[in-house]
Amino acid sequence: MKAAVGVRTIDWADGAIVIIDQTALPLETRLVTLRTVEELRDAIRRLAVRGAMALGVAGALGIALAASRAREDRRDLDRAVDEAARVLVAARPTAVNLAWGIGRAMAARSGGLEAILAEALRVLEADVATNRSIGKRGADLLAGKRRILTHCNAGALAGAEWGTALAVVRVLHERGAIDEVFVSETRPLLQGARLTTWELKDLGVPHRVIVDGAAASLILGGRVDAVVVGADRIAASGDVANKVGTLSHALAAARAGIPFIVAAPESTLDPATSSGDAIVIEERDESEVLEFAGQRIAPPGTRALNLAFDVTPADLVTAIVTERRVIRPAVDAPIASLDA
Amino acid sequence: MKAAVGVRTIDWADGAIVIIDQTALPLETRLVTLRTVEELRDAIRRLAVRGAMALGVAGALGIALAASRAREDRRDLDRAVDEAARVLVAARPTAVNLAWGIGRAMAARSGGLEAILAEALRVLEADVATNRSIGKRGADLLAGKRRILTHCNAGALAGAEWGTALAVVRVLHERGAIDEVFVSETRPLLQGARLTTWELKDLGVPHRVIVDGAAASLILGGRVDAVVVGADRIAASGDVANKVGTLSHALAAARAGIPFIVAAPESTLDPATSSGDAIVIEERDESEVLEFAGQRIAPPGTRALNLAFDVTPADLVTAIVTERRVIRPAVDAPIASLDA
Repeated sequence: MKAAVGVRTIDWADGAIVIIDQTALPLETRLVTLRTVEELRDAIRRLAVRGAMALGVAGALGIALAASRAREDRRDLDRAVDEAARVLVAARPTAVNLAWGIGRAMAARSGGLEAILAEALRVLEADVATNRSIGKRGADLLAGKRRILTHCNAGALAGAEWGTALAVVRVLHERGAIDEVFVSETRPLLQGARLTTWELKDLGVPHRVIVDGAAASLILGGRVDAVVVGADRIAASGDVANKVGTLSHALAAARAGIPFIVAAPESTLDPATSSGDAIVIEERDESEVLEFAGQRIAPPGTRALNLAFDVTPADLVTAIVTERRVIRPAVDAPIASLDA
Repeated sequence: MKAAVGVRTIDWADGAIVIIDQTALPLETRLVTLRTVEELRDAIRRLAVRGAMALGVAGALGIALAASRAREDRRDLDRAVDEAARVLVAARPTAVNLAWGIGRAMAARSGGLEAILAEALRVLEADVATNRSIGKRGADLLAGKRRILTHCNAGALAGAEWGTALAVVRVLHERGAIDEVFVSETRPLLQGARLTTWELKDLGVPHRVIVDGAAASLILGGRVDAVVVGADRIAASGDVANKVGTLSHALAAARAGIPFIVAAPESTLDPATSSGDAIVIEERDESEVLEFAGQRIAPPGTRALNLAFDVTPADLVTAIVTERRVIRPAVDAPIASLDA
């Protein structure tokens, strides 16, 4: 992955955040430098940077960015980081990692800019190690499952390096244990078709794109051995918020009796949220559904409801794989924080 | 519907078939005249004419077209209609109504062109009466269900007049019994977003478009009272082949305990097919998934698997509503033909 693009999905350079603009992929690998909290917020909102782990890094680096700008402008650091935290959390309210990354950097504020930046860079480096650990543990769990279905993009582009669900695929592939990966395209923004394919191609993993609605048919038809997805927030109950469309795949996997695996860092676990009912589901702009590449697909005046996420109930989740453990919600819920 | 477009979705005029080109909707209402079996086949293949009931009419009129051309060209009528039947059936192998309509017209061949044409026009007129009967029976069954979710387009554009699933919606709306219809967009060809919205707007029914993957979330979230879809083929077991994505909605409806209703003419029932396993699922061109409005959405070289239909197992189907009866597969299967 890194070899293909020469840079990380998100990184810190010369006092600014540098990202790969994921809205330009797969046609163009465009680097964007974000110099202010507002630029970062806009990049998060338009999904130029996205994915649970990348958002955690973005949150932490965003606080460092605020502190850095505050010093340059001789503004009060505490006020600047408070304001930045508020602005950034509101950019993607469902993504717990964003808030988590912000919190990590905020915890270092008493040490000033240097301490905040050092902590943010630790979040970045820890993400890389986390990805690898999730990949290995998930691959162990899925030994013998050669045909995998995944949704959205929980790959390198969603983290700083390997990602989560695609880290599992990557390790399975390195072990010669993958026949094919089915990539559900993930409407409305097509992260599967655009981003996951781009990564799998780079890794040399055989794969085909399907429309989201075709997954159930493949799963019940015996053509898929396991479903592996990422997560944006996991409640104490084991209910999993992830990109809209995930729930349908889970329902099909449960009926077919194949594993439905959630690969996510510990930071995605949100023990303070008791169950999925309490998770705020972001509604995004109708135009994402009603337009494509600037062209309208529905009649003039037609409205849409654009839910960005759905919640998969814990009883449909076979296992949650983190960098430190395998959680089986049916027996392990409520899920406690290991740091508690 | 008819008032809005001034013509039927499919009709016979001056020795040719006239259709509304559904690939041009909703931006343009374009009439196309089909003068040869090959032109009709191409129109069927590119989904310019589509939907179970419209395909039944198209099949019958297609045989009349073949007979008409044979007379003009002084070719053998029997040979011409045999060849036309073979060509037309192969255009959409999953659609039982197409074969049924062809069979209806073929049965009149001993009477020559005039008898074939008269029978084809009877198929067309009977379709109108069938639509209305399905609509009324379905609406009776769904009394009190004010929030409906539908998939693809099983409306006027799929029949000659009212359609099937949308005939149910139409009658419910006339009774003042609809709060809102959720229209799943139906990737890859977006018949929901393009066609169903166009019809619902014309009827004045409140509706919103959702991506296919959002349906399960709305259904399990208690925001939908019933799912109503059409069908392309129904096996004796009650297994239902319909547009890809239907199965996911059925899985969600079953878990939520809301009705999953299939609205279809008797001609969609295929007692000769014992179960869904025996239904041939059409695989369509990969470009339908990988390109959008001529623009590629996946990296160069990426492959797709494009299954046009899926099969919903009978145990997920609450009821099948035809123009003559309500079938509950759980108790009524195997489903016998009323004409047997």
